[in-house]
Amino acid sequence: MSHGFYSACAEFHLWLSWLISVLCKFSYTMCYSLADSDCSPEAGRTSLSRRGASKTGSFKPKNTIVSNSPSTMTTKRRLLLISNSTLHGGGYLEHCQEHIVKFLGKQVKRVLFVPYALHGRDDYAKIARQKFESLGYGLDSVHEAENPVEAVQNCQAIFIGGGNTFRLLKALYDNNLIPAIRKKVLEDGIPYIGSSAGTNVATITINTTNDMPIVYPPSLHALGLVPFNINPHYLDPDANSKHMGETREQRITQYHEEQDTPPVLAIREGCLLLVEGDKATLLGVTGARLFQRGKATSEHDPGHDFSFLLAHS
Amino acid sequence: MSHGFYSACAEFHLWLSWLISVLCKFSYTMCYSLADSDCSPEAGRTSLSRRGASKTGSFKPKNTIVSNSPSTMTTKRRLLLISNSTLHGGGYLEHCQEHIVKFLGKQVKRVLFVPYALHGRDDYAKIARQKFESLGYGLDSVHEAENPVEAVQNCQAIFIGGGNTFRLLKALYDNNLIPAIRKKVLEDGIPYIGSSAGTNVATITINTTNDMPIVYPPSLHALGLVPFNINPHYLDPDANSKHMGETREQRITQYHEEQDTPPVLAIREGCLLLVEGDKATLLGVTGARLFQRGKATSEHDPGHDFSFLLAHS
Repeated sequence: MSHGFYSACAEFHLWLSWLISVLCKFSYTMCYSLADSDCSPEAGRTSLSRRGASKTGSFKPKNTIVSNSPSTMTTKRRLLLISNSTLHGGGYLEHCQEHIVKFLGKQVKRVLFVPYALHGRDDYAKIARQKFESLGYGLDSVHEAENPVEAVQNCQAIFIGGGNTFRLLKALYDNNLIPAIRKKVLEDGIPYIGSSAGTNVATITINTTNDMPIVYPPSLHALGLVPFNINPHYLDPDANSKHMGETREQRITQYHEEQDTPPVLAIREGCLLLVEGDKATLLGVTGARLFQRGKATSEHDPGHDFSFLLAHS
Repeated sequence: MSHGFYSACAEFHLWLSWLISVLCKFSYTMCYSLADSDCSPEAGRTSLSRRGASKTGSFKPKNTIVSNSPSTMTTKRRLLLISNSTLHGGGYLEHCQEHIVKFLGKQVKRVLFVPYALHGRDDYAKIARQKFESLGYGLDSVHEAENPVEAVQNCQAIFIGGGNTFRLLKALYDNNLIPAIRKKVLEDGIPYIGSSAGTNVATITINTTNDMPIVYPPSLHALGLVPFNINPHYLDPDANSKHMGETREQRITQYHEEQDTPPVLAIREGCLLLVEGDKATLLGVTGARLFQRGKATSEHDPGHDFSFLLAHS
């Protein structure tokens, strides 16, 4: 076969990539714009931020007007974003169980669990069910539902567990749960708990996950429940290490070398972020490190008010 | 705006995803099939493996006949795949410089450098140029070329340096260098040196990179110069660690929970793999760990013959 024909074929592949990109932009913009026009002003603000960060995601709508004006209305959004499910020496969700109970309150009777981040969904649901039942809540796993979208539409609270973030996000797309969960959390105000990978997908993108890309999701854009990124399981550089792979700090700094990238809140194990409407507070026993493009990083203790990150665009 | 219209929009997005997937399958299969029909029988075998592993990549051609029959002809392929550019306590490429000189030999006068994995391409090229000139070779950086594809077509040898694997792979796609490098290495037999991210992209996919997904490449499929994956900078589990994030071993095991995933050769820092045609040999001062789906992992010292991995499909 001639080399000319081979080149023509490679060019066709490039052309098709361009066409796909244009179609994606149209579809993505349309889908999220409409979702946001259905939601609170906060969701609209979130959407603008998603566009701002889109250069590192799958879809890159250009010429989009990005507004920095903060909304004066509060959203119903309620999130508990946990760095890690298990703290060294403790049991599953043990280190944050009091926060979970306080967060869910007495109105919630059953929690919808999303086990997509691990391969063994039955076993994972069993572990989560045992824990939530011990705290006084029933637990349904979305993988057992005949219609996952309806399960989300009818739930009282959502808990997305940890594992592999790429696998989790791909399954959320495959099951068409992204718009369903966004609507449920941002419009209906049901409580959302995320742990590790479940915290990653609650943010604007999964660009700052620590996980291995074992599968290829259709985009790195995630639920966008907050307009910034989180790096869970944050690890400080080890001055004694002889390993030459990049430190976590170097990796996040590399992310901010890319244009229009949002802040990254790096939360250490033992740390969690509580978001109630437009208020965000750091909880737990360890601190967080905030990385912002073009600014020096800063260190923050539990109790710190991160509400300003919710207004980021 | 009505919820019905919102749902219809989400369904349109799903339908479009399906359409894109079909177009991608067609384009990808066509592009690589033709590339392979232009290449040696080995390249054809590589392509079959790529299809086998495609469930974790962007494109998933189904109903493709996968052959296990090894080719009896050898390919011209010559690769030196290095785990890490710098070993603790040493200078840039110092630990493997003798291997590089022996590998390039006396016929090669100039090396084409690909600096895409780091943001500061000028600085990166300067460091690489200094090193290669100290070894007796001229160095041109592809980012300085007016036409990167032509620079590849005219080069005597290629060196792809480390950094962020996602950024590197995306830039290779953006500059249309994937088919150009494949042709140059698999057909023309020019020497290919990869280090860290440059080693990742030489393999079938970047599914087993350690890097943060700071950008979104159009696929995780890479150059496919060998029909398996590599995990560079391999780190053994640390029994004393209190960190609860997954170990490297757990991450690679999660990859093999996915169907049709190829072997992963995990090479420790200080380790490199020499591929000459259909022969692959482990070099360096540390060992490698081989992960295969459904099999026990195995430990291998420098000098080990990994040629059987080249016949994998």
